[in-house]
Amino acid sequence: MERTIKLALIPGDGIGPEVVAEAVKVLDAVAPGAGVEFEKTHFSLGAARFLETGDVLTDDDLAAIAAHDVILLGAVGGVPGDPRLKNANIERGLLLKLRFSLDHYVNLRPTVIYPGVPSPLAEHGDVDFVVVREGTEGPYVGNGGAIRTGTPHEIANEVSINTAYGVERVVRDAFARASARRNKLTLVHKTNVLTFAGGLWKRVVDEVGATFPEVAVDYLHVDAATIFLVTDPARFDVIVTDNLFGDILTDLAGAISGGIGLAASGNINPDGAFPSMFEPVHGSAPDIAGQQKADPTAAILSAALLLDHLALTDAADRVRTAVVADIASRDGRPARTTAEIGDAVVAALGA
Amino acid sequence: MERTIKLALIPGDGIGPEVVAEAVKVLDAVAPGAGVEFEKTHFSLGAARFLETGDVLTDDDLAAIAAHDVILLGAVGGVPGDPRLKNANIERGLLLKLRFSLDHYVNLRPTVIYPGVPSPLAEHGDVDFVVVREGTEGPYVGNGGAIRTGTPHEIANEVSINTAYGVERVVRDAFARASARRNKLTLVHKTNVLTFAGGLWKRVVDEVGATFPEVAVDYLHVDAATIFLVTDPARFDVIVTDNLFGDILTDLAGAISGGIGLAASGNINPDGAFPSMFEPVHGSAPDIAGQQKADPTAAILSAALLLDHLALTDAADRVRTAVVADIASRDGRPARTTAEIGDAVVAALGA
Ligand SMILES: CC(C)[C@H](C(=O)O)[C@@H](O)C(=O)O
Ligand SMILES: CC(C)[C@H](C(=O)O)[C@@H](O)C(=O)O
Repeated sequence: MERTIKLALIPGDGIGPEVVAEAVKVLDAVAPGAGVEFEKTHFSLGAARFLETGDVLTDDDLAAIAAHDVILLGAVGGVPGDPRLKNANIERGLLLKLRFSLDHYVNLRPTVIYPGVPSPLAEHGDVDFVVVREGTEGPYVGNGGAIRTGTPHEIANEVSINTAYGVERVVRDAFARASARRNKLTLVHKTNVLTFAGGLWKRVVDEVGATFPEVAVDYLHVDAATIFLVTDPARFDVIVTDNLFGDILTDLAGAISGGIGLAASGNINPDGAFPSMFEPVHGSAPDIAGQQKADPTAAILSAALLLDHLALTDAADRVRTAVVADIASRDGRPARTTAEIGDAVVAALGA
Repeated sequence: MERTIKLALIPGDGIGPEVVAEAVKVLDAVAPGAGVEFEKTHFSLGAARFLETGDVLTDDDLAAIAAHDVILLGAVGGVPGDPRLKNANIERGLLLKLRFSLDHYVNLRPTVIYPGVPSPLAEHGDVDFVVVREGTEGPYVGNGGAIRTGTPHEIANEVSINTAYGVERVVRDAFARASARRNKLTLVHKTNVLTFAGGLWKRVVDEVGATFPEVAVDYLHVDAATIFLVTDPARFDVIVTDNLFGDILTDLAGAISGGIGLAASGNINPDGAFPSMFEPVHGSAPDIAGQQKADPTAAILSAALLLDHLALTDAADRVRTAVVADIASRDGRPARTTAEIGDAVVAALGA
């Protein structure tokens, strides 16, 4: 008896559809062995849809997506500077709306420097850490405003909102992950400047940490954290941080670990009240769209996180092993198309 | 006839006094040739002073400092975790209070990868850019608060305040610098998420940019900017950004360019209404304090920025040339003491 998994696909714009196609190939290839079947629904969302219909994400779209078990997203965003998109803000209206509406409070972003991957860092040890980025609060809440807009007297404010409720649940998740990994957790914030928000984060980490005595806790200001990511990335195991700092640190983490083309992420609702959503960290790269030039590895690794989330751990590990083998085989070989890389990963899955 | 410059010295904590001593040596060495004399006042401020008197920065301190032409600061901050400093927040009460009270709206942070300096980046071109970080607004204003503190219902907010007045004056300064350099300005923000603050920054850059037609303008989200700092730092000339993003980007810039031990900064009030303040980007490093282990180069390069600010350009260039020569001579030689490095730079100043 196969378990049917309702999978919502949001390929999106630019290279999104190309990389999602490869991730789906891989999911379908491991499904039988895992005793599951993916029942897919395609959602046409993003800049292209907006240009056609004027809608970014309707309540009906949202309800339909929410009725699925899990979501795989490619990338959204049109050509930068396209005047027709000036007032659209696809990122806020689609990506952030999904994350907030589906209560994706754990934004999970692993960084591994894989053997054979050229990293821009001259030297580094074994790099394998995961950033647990809060996904529903902080400066991302959209709680800002402006007065006297467009005049020399304009004032524009942005409010970062942080709640004990919101911080506690993500910090607890991060400690649980650290406990299942190498027992090290680093809080990253800017407590010396953002004293109110920082004070809350620090207190919650202290309190939750008391219930995980096996986990060593460390603290870094966000500015210092960027230094250590470059000079000593091997020191990190689990990093827990707020929505904005997590955004910045994970792009940097992608850059030091051999490129944003390998960086996977999950937008997770651990309670299971809403479907979780998996997506490569990279954007839609309209300049290379439709040319089979994009590397689907980040999307495929995001599919592995999706399998993890469904507790299909063996299947997830099979995918990761195949990806690592594929990456290790790249050195000195000519560039492949998006589909060729997907096919190679499927082939590397073995029997 | 020599011009007398009233110089306020705030050596501070940890390695601060050691590195300031070397920067002062260098200033005194170039002073005669520049036709100036430095009349110095020492201010004992920082964690040590707080532990002695309970004061961080009194109104009298502030008034006395403000009566000087220019300020050189080492580093402030006690031993991390010292329980006696728990409620002090030396950073907010001293460093940020000085920057805000003295209206240091241009926080200037140059990055150069000097010949002979080992950078953790495997490959890089000619790296020479300057970050113009806004210094008096944004999330640094201290406009936050919390309710139900210490309970599971705590809410902690931080408000980022951005004004057309404040953004316009720093953007104008950045354009003027770009125009005197390589005619390229990159605005870094997060306009897709912080739409109100981001909208203001973008509008002001467009408007001021229209009066600098020779300067090419570029925009990057802060997350993408961290990627380019690692993968292509040579692309930057002048970066203009807000207080928090500037804090993060400049520590990262220090890391990629061979270490925070070389990173200089100026907290500048271009209007001249208040004295400007120059300081190394690094902290007080209490773990190596008093051991003559600290590299005074960042403090010495900060002194060069101080000379620039006083329009003593020839003297500033002499200092930079001497520093570059000293750095180039380091490769393979044994480590020197803080004072030895200062003496070597003075010797390299030549006749
Ligand atoms: C597109 C943007 C809103 C988004 C974010 O800032 O979270 C992206 O940068 C990411 O990290 O997924
Ligand atoms: C010490 C701290 C308040 C300060 C800042 O955040 O501005 C420091 O990191 C800096 O960059 O000068």
